[in-house]
Amino acid sequence: MAERHPSTARKTDRLEAFSDAVLAIAITVPVVRLTSPQVPASGDLGQAYAALWPDYIAYGFSVAVIGLYWAHSHFSGKIIEKTDHVFNLLTILFLAAVSITPFPARAFVEHMAGDANSRTAGVIYTSLLAIPSLVWLIRWSYAVGRGLPDPRLDPTYLRQVTIKYAVTAAVFVAGVALSALVDWRVGFGVTALVTLTYLIPPMRPRYKPGQDPADELEEADGD
Amino acid sequence: MAERHPSTARKTDRLEAFSDAVLAIAITVPVVRLTSPQVPASGDLGQAYAALWPDYIAYGFSVAVIGLYWAHSHFSGKIIEKTDHVFNLLTILFLAAVSITPFPARAFVEHMAGDANSRTAGVIYTSLLAIPSLVWLIRWSYAVGRGLPDPRLDPTYLRQVTIKYAVTAAVFVAGVALSALVDWRVGFGVTALVTLTYLIPPMRPRYKPGQDPADELEEADGD
Amino acid sequence: MAERHPSTARKTDRLEAFSDAVLAIAITVPVVRLTSPQVPASGDLGQAYAALWPDYIAYGFSVAVIGLYWAHSHFSGKIIEKTDHVFNLLTILFLAAVSITPFPARAFVEHMAGDANSRTAGVIYTSLLAIPSLVWLIRWSYAVGRGLPDPRLDPTYLRQVTIKYAVTAAVFVAGVALSALVDWRVGFGVTALVTLTYLIPPMRPRYKPGQDPADELEEADGD
Amino acid sequence: MAERHPSTARKTDRLEAFSDAVLAIAITVPVVRLTSPQVPASGDLGQAYAALWPDYIAYGFSVAVIGLYWAHSHFSGKIIEKTDHVFNLLTILFLAAVSITPFPARAFVEHMAGDANSRTAGVIYTSLLAIPSLVWLIRWSYAVGRGLPDPRLDPTYLRQVTIKYAVTAAVFVAGVALSALVDWRVGFGVTALVTLTYLIPPMRPRYKPGQDPADELEEADGD
Repeated sequence: MAERHPSTARKTDRLEAFSDAVLAIAITVPVVRLTSPQVPASGDLGQAYAALWPDYIAYGFSVAVIGLYWAHSHFSGKIIEKTDHVFNLLTILFLAAVSITPFPARAFVEHMAGDANSRTAGVIYTSLLAIPSLVWLIRWSYAVGRGLPDPRLDPTYLRQVTIKYAVTAAVFVAGVALSALVDWRVGFGVTALVTLTYLIPPMRPRYKPGQDPADELEEADGD
Repeated sequence: MAERHPSTARKTDRLEAFSDAVLAIAITVPVVRLTSPQVPASGDLGQAYAALWPDYIAYGFSVAVIGLYWAHSHFSGKIIEKTDHVFNLLTILFLAAVSITPFPARAFVEHMAGDANSRTAGVIYTSLLAIPSLVWLIRWSYAVGRGLPDPRLDPTYLRQVTIKYAVTAAVFVAGVALSALVDWRVGFGVTALVTLTYLIPPMRPRYKPGQDPADELEEADGD
Repeated sequence: MAERHPSTARKTDRLEAFSDAVLAIAITVPVVRLTSPQVPASGDLGQAYAALWPDYIAYGFSVAVIGLYWAHSHFSGKIIEKTDHVFNLLTILFLAAVSITPFPARAFVEHMAGDANSRTAGVIYTSLLAIPSLVWLIRWSYAVGRGLPDPRLDPTYLRQVTIKYAVTAAVFVAGVALSALVDWRVGFGVTALVTLTYLIPPMRPRYKPGQDPADELEEADGD
Repeated sequence: MAERHPSTARKTDRLEAFSDAVLAIAITVPVVRLTSPQVPASGDLGQAYAALWPDYIAYGFSVAVIGLYWAHSHFSGKIIEKTDHVFNLLTILFLAAVSITPFPARAFVEHMAGDANSRTAGVIYTSLLAIPSLVWLIRWSYAVGRGLPDPRLDPTYLRQVTIKYAVTAAVFVAGVALSALVDWRVGFGVTALVTLTYLIPPMRPRYKPGQDPADELEEADGD
């Protein structure tokens, strides 16, 4: 019988806390790059602020990407019950991949108006956005293969989540290919669109018949 | 019957931990900007330290703003019982808005003595201080609308809190308007004053008759 | 009868988590200042590394100061049972005061060999080390005055802890005075010495007769 | 009888949370060093990105080293049950030693192609990688000597873990010696190899006969 282990909640607690801390830092670090413009009393401060526009957009992009990953790792942390050494290492890889996404954002924004470097900037940015989605897919697949999610979850539900993550990763990779081969605007558009679909709340977890958690609040996230 | 769910506490735990981590980083990051002045043995170190005064004041402002937001999110975390995907995203938006408040602080302090750029510096700083108060109001209203606070709380109490946050946001917006249209000193004064009212402990939560939490410590914060 | 509240542990949990996060960042931020020296293949990398010695010592000082504060806030977190709004604000003040201690460390180390700026560097560094000890004393006194510590603790024990913190703060202030009026070496020596006394484990908490916590592990820290 | 203390889990919780926070910051801070290259529209952005290769490799090294230490401190946190003041201080020393490992990584990578500075860069990098392994060994030995691990663990198992850590530290020190005296490539190779052995999951904890934890999940990490 699928009985809940009393210490389950604690099992992934420390991994989740570590992930949260890394994502919290990763989402805040881009702020370090924003420094007040320094102009003499005779200079135009408004213009100096305006000139920093690529930094603002890059900050917005970075917050959106890392924030959405956090929201979804918050959700997936709820359905993954156990962790092991390999899952820990895959999580670190995932966190490093997400943390590095702000790095090429500024260059991309700077060349967004369209110049000889726009394609390069687009390919690099879409690539660095695609990598975490691939690591996420590998990490999730590993978790499912090793039985780390809550055993009461409906296997069909788990398969649907896997398909969702696989499609996401495929679209991200397509975004890179489109940036490189067709048009960086199309590639980035596809990448941005698939990112924004994660604004939609994740699917509500489905459980095996008669194994719904007694406490309805356990599902509130997927609501 | 309004029964307490045993897992309730854990429901917002991870969101609170994430918020705390972001605010902890946001409050500490301004320290990165403070670097020891380097003067030759023959130079005047005291003068070099003194010349950094705008950094000190900007640091003080940033700690005050983020610290007060933390203290109040500590309080509101206690009365909000559940979270969902949209509330998570609104929280990330709020955190990004708070994290960015130190960015224009230094420029504001530098032009505080009064020069051609003071108005611009004031409008931008008061604007960046107003944004988190607006996001906070939206986030709180969403939480109340979706029934995320503790269901035992007195609806009148919840309404009073909403009014308080709405008035705060309105005053912040008025601070921006005053900075832009009347005098940046007045605008900043109003903004500073409303910020400082948050030094006053928040209202003690009021519960529906007969639904006071058994444990008096649960209310200690609002004391 | 002094009965333990079941939710007590959670009462200061979030404050402790926030403190820990701020101190964790404050202790790690000085690393950001350490960047690999860049020399051409023909240059002398060893010399370039050696030239960074003030950074190494400043890093060591900062880790020691913040680490010891963390260890003692770990201990005091165990005997303080409740928190309130003012205690939260005093904690933020304390954290800001500790976070800023690495700022003047490098300048102090640079002028440690003795030059015209040594006294200034010493007065500023000892002052910034004295401030957190004063805020700590105020914060602790407030906690005791408001009955925030575990009510089962022996009042004599609480008084002894207060005296210890008061003496510490007095010695730190004396360190500043000695730096300014007598010799910066003496002042810093006194400051360093009192800091190092915190390497000694804190006094084991003493409880009122018959109110020792059932679980001996609760006292392990003060061992 | 070796009875489990109900508050045990909380005993090291705060220390673990602090460690996790420091390691989370240490693993994310190297990202701060990565800034988008800025080239004019006419420049070659691809080349500018390529020129940053030492930063990428240094980032990879740093993530690997800190990530593996986190994964193993996650494991050891599970078998260490209590903490005391000295163990807290040794943990701070360990965290400071790990946090500083990214510092010489970039210089090492820059001189990896082989030049007059390669040996210096190698000796310094392998030394800074050896220090945390030594502090880790001291910290673990202290914990075992003071009876901080779970008392139900088989003493033979504890001895095997101690031997493993002692061998690791010895190999790290050998890596420094080989870098200095034989060839920096050999020294770094040995250091890298012993680091990579930590990709292998740690030994599953063994308990005294009849004292296996009731909950099998408690052992999942060492699986």
